[in-house]
Amino acid sequence: MAAALSPASSLRLKPLSAARFLSIYRRQTDPNKTIPTTLTNLTTKPRFPPKRLRYSITLSSVKDSPLSSSNRRRFCTVVIGALSSGEAVESAKREVFAKKDGKIGEEIGEFRKKLRIVDVKGGPDEGLDRLGQTLVVRGWVRTLRVQSSVTFIEVNDGSCLSNMQCVMSSDAEGYDQVESGLIATGASLWVQGILVPSQGSKQKVELKVEKLIMIGRSDPSFPIQKKRVSREFLRTKAHLRPRTNTFGAVARVRNALAYATHKFFQDNGFVWVSSPIITASDCEGAGEQFCVTTLIPSSHEAADSLADSIPKTEDGFIDWSQDFFGKPAFLTVSGQLNAETYATALTDVYTFGPTFRAENSNTSRHLAEFWMIEPELAFADLNDDMTCATAYLQYVVKYVLDNCKEDMDFFNTWIEKGIINRLSDVVDKNFVQLTYTDAIALLLRANKKFEFPVEWGCDLQSEHERYITEEAFGGCPVIVRDYPKEIKAFYMRQNDDGKTVAAMDMLVPRVGELIGGSQREERLEYLEDRLDNLNLNKENYWWYLDLRRYGSVPHAGFGLGFERLVQFATGIENIRDAIPFPRSPGSAEF
Amino acid sequence: MAAALSPASSLRLKPLSAARFLSIYRRQTDPNKTIPTTLTNLTTKPRFPPKRLRYSITLSSVKDSPLSSSNRRRFCTVVIGALSSGEAVESAKREVFAKKDGKIGEEIGEFRKKLRIVDVKGGPDEGLDRLGQTLVVRGWVRTLRVQSSVTFIEVNDGSCLSNMQCVMSSDAEGYDQVESGLIATGASLWVQGILVPSQGSKQKVELKVEKLIMIGRSDPSFPIQKKRVSREFLRTKAHLRPRTNTFGAVARVRNALAYATHKFFQDNGFVWVSSPIITASDCEGAGEQFCVTTLIPSSHEAADSLADSIPKTEDGFIDWSQDFFGKPAFLTVSGQLNAETYATALTDVYTFGPTFRAENSNTSRHLAEFWMIEPELAFADLNDDMTCATAYLQYVVKYVLDNCKEDMDFFNTWIEKGIINRLSDVVDKNFVQLTYTDAIALLLRANKKFEFPVEWGCDLQSEHERYITEEAFGGCPVIVRDYPKEIKAFYMRQNDDGKTVAAMDMLVPRVGELIGGSQREERLEYLEDRLDNLNLNKENYWWYLDLRRYGSVPHAGFGLGFERLVQFATGIENIRDAIPFPRSPGSAEF
Repeated sequence: MAAALSPASSLRLKPLSAARFLSIYRRQTDPNKTIPTTLTNLTTKPRFPPKRLRYSITLSSVKDSPLSSSNRRRFCTVVIGALSSGEAVESAKREVFAKKDGKIGEEIGEFRKKLRIVDVKGGPDEGLDRLGQTLVVRGWVRTLRVQSSVTFIEVNDGSCLSNMQCVMSSDAEGYDQVESGLIATGASLWVQGILVPSQGSKQKVELKVEKLIMIGRSDPSFPIQKKRVSREFLRTKAHLRPRTNTFGAVARVRNALAYATHKFFQDNGFVWVSSPIITASDCEGAGEQFCVTTLIPSSHEAADSLADSIPKTEDGFIDWSQDFFGKPAFLTVSGQLNAETYATALTDVYTFGPTFRAENSNTSRHLAEFWMIEPELAFADLNDDMTCATAYLQYVVKYVLDNCKEDMDFFNTWIEKGIINRLSDVVDKNFVQLTYTDAIALLLRANKKFEFPVEWGCDLQSEHERYITEEAFGGCPVIVRDYPKEIKAFYMRQNDDGKTVAAMDMLVPRVGELIGGSQREERLEYLEDRLDNLNLNKENYWWYLDLRRYGSVPHAGFGLGFERLVQFATGIENIRDAIPFPRSPGSAEF
Repeated sequence: MAAALSPASSLRLKPLSAARFLSIYRRQTDPNKTIPTTLTNLTTKPRFPPKRLRYSITLSSVKDSPLSSSNRRRFCTVVIGALSSGEAVESAKREVFAKKDGKIGEEIGEFRKKLRIVDVKGGPDEGLDRLGQTLVVRGWVRTLRVQSSVTFIEVNDGSCLSNMQCVMSSDAEGYDQVESGLIATGASLWVQGILVPSQGSKQKVELKVEKLIMIGRSDPSFPIQKKRVSREFLRTKAHLRPRTNTFGAVARVRNALAYATHKFFQDNGFVWVSSPIITASDCEGAGEQFCVTTLIPSSHEAADSLADSIPKTEDGFIDWSQDFFGKPAFLTVSGQLNAETYATALTDVYTFGPTFRAENSNTSRHLAEFWMIEPELAFADLNDDMTCATAYLQYVVKYVLDNCKEDMDFFNTWIEKGIINRLSDVVDKNFVQLTYTDAIALLLRANKKFEFPVEWGCDLQSEHERYITEEAFGGCPVIVRDYPKEIKAFYMRQNDDGKTVAAMDMLVPRVGELIGGSQREERLEYLEDRLDNLNLNKENYWWYLDLRRYGSVPHAGFGLGFERLVQFATGIENIRDAIPFPRSPGSAEF
């Protein structure tokens, strides 16, 4: 298949296009010294300041050097430079190259923020503020419609859902590439044109093409053609699916949620802490863990490893002393215990990193590898924990509603009708808290038949959680607190009733449990008792217990599975579509 | 040892303190309905708006419920609430609890940003703007000096390097705790007092203590006493070392660098992409990888696993079909190839996540687990890549200089004299670029004896790199580009000379190589040839090659080891001190 393709770099192999392309530069006064690298802003009224030169003087000593490569920058580089440079000038100014006598070297140019389609169409005027400007758009062809007089090419650069509609008549430069049929869905283009009012109703502006260059063609086998393809199929094309509307929008909203997460915690004085991924610490307990080892030879040889090649002791046990860490090591299931060590030094911290579960469950709600956000607050109790979780969720949801309007409209139309209302409710409504005990009472009084019976002491099932948040409280997020200690983790703070712990789960409509947290047991003797009762070896927890020996403080925190949040905010049903490269039993491709 | 300690919650076991404590609330009109949760702002002119109530009405139906817990909030919770709540009121307002007839539940309170020591002392006035205010400080005792008339207690909360000097006379409430000798280095305190001008020269303000409560005592075995302890020793106390000046400062600067990284890329339109951590994709090649498997039983059993229990095929090979992913899987060594898939859909992306090397090198420059930042720019060439790397580095360094002044002064004094000048140079100086070929010429002409001989084709050693940036260019960061293809990775774009590739390494004083990047080979046939020449199996690269089949574009990116950046910005010599929980051969504790 591959052999049938012409090179992606067809542009650079076409002397004709090149000649046309370079002709623009004839106006330059001294082409030997200055090599402009962009075609943009050729209109008489440039919107941005004039370009600074990317290459300043090549010092004479370079030319003296026998190995000098001062002539290495040839046509090819110039074209790529033109294709790649942006319009908006940013970053610090560079005045003069700090010349050092006899030294070779050149100045580094300025970094330029690219002009993206979102910069043109994403503003309140949807591009009308730029009418008449000559712009360059770079992106990938979503659709191409050849009509009698003009050709419509929808170009997308991933900066927003919207394409730039490029309208090309037969007299525009590069029309031969359209005529020859080379430009198909998936091809990459460089398009220069004038922004004009659009005739169509779907957008306010469009680009009247002056010049078009195909950068890379798209083989007809391109699997994502215009017709809608299933999300199941797209999971097998995880490397191409971000080029679709749905996955482009998910990627942008995921990004916005991540950045909003950092903003929220940073603005509130939390310090980001990277908890370890590999851990030989034996105190995480719950959950199936992946083993991390070098006893099995690396990548290229692993498939043919003899089982007998794994080192063993005389007694036939695996000889961990020969492993990388000298003992069994695993992928983390949570950064919480580590976060506690930093919270009891820096007061408020958060982790945001990958965590792992080797659970063999092939569901739409589970991943073997997922990202977790785990804030930990010192000098804080369960109430502080609940207020923080509530403020956090409202902040990030509002951030997405404010900053991803177009993508959210898309989800509202195509993925989950009403999602914008659902999320607006989260921002606007008062969250409710009630105790587990009250929640059980509420469920017992409910005029509803549940599959799983309700009684004090049982773990709440999804049906219970959704009844509470969706029906009993009409779509309002609900925090259930003070769970029976038997169904919660060892580190949760025991309440004075002796039966419950200061745990809390935030339940939200549609998803159920989104956040789980607790106040941590800060009293050494209570914690040790609990470990004893659970037959856990206190020696493994020496450093965790130390936090209670030296200046212990009330502290609390919560955990949030980031992909669940992405599902919550996009309406995407399967969690494997909420992360770029999902890992699940039998699947770690890409 | 633990048994010798009194409970951390001594406060809650002391009815006397409690009585004193609660007496403040007598002024409340209706103590049954409203429970204030903070002691602060007791001055006549409150700085912040009056506190909103944390608990509103408990609905009557709760009282009807046989399982009601409306009385569960007792003294204990009130005290903790007082200990933990902050002064500054933040987040959206909550007006009235959305009452639903017959439903139980209560409103969630407001999240309050804590008043931290940095909020008091970190401003331009160093606290003088708050003179006369009654404040509450919560933190850990760094030192305690009992003098004849007053006691000085230095309290640190990790929000900044500075302690709050708390000056306590014998008539202040809680002085009995000082007298009894309970309050030692490492203990946690809650201190209320009036901010007054300091008599000392080390700070402008100090807290005149009105009331002090010890929250958690510190056992005399606390390993971090006032005397300076070595960083080697502190590595064995990774759970406590953030309570030292050095590691607190490293944590804050690390956090600032991480946030600045996100800000830089987000402000420039990049999308954060989480590249996978576990990968069964066989195309990462270089570097020793960790194997990830469930063939070895999980955590609690692994230490006693029989080597024979690992499943094998009839031929004696490891039976990977029984492993979690159905084939060998490894920890990622780089997210770059995955990032390329998103860059060729969204234009500009970056990863920021953990990566792994199973190299058995116990040096001060290597970690088995480290965080990488890998931007990938579409429609970009090597020049764009260099300008981006330069702008990025200058941005994050400037961010730290601007936002971590106190910590940087500390590093400048105690860790690396002159580091502020070194970093200011990075922000102010023009970076220099030169080709590898010119760099070799420069090294050959250098009047200097190198340990490793210099000739065209050799890889640059640390001594060469440091000569170039520190001596030849006098401390200016230098980018060396266009390396021989033999010493660089398969995916780098071949230059027209046929000998070199469009790679670049950024060299900085003291650290040497900090950033490595390249333009990627976007031409399908060149890439396939390269794979063939290196005897790599093209089938393993099917999805990577697909990016060149469908709309290929010039693209480029770079990688930066985050802990190297932390070293660069703090002067910390050993990379194990630049990450909270370092992993290296034989060491995965905590």
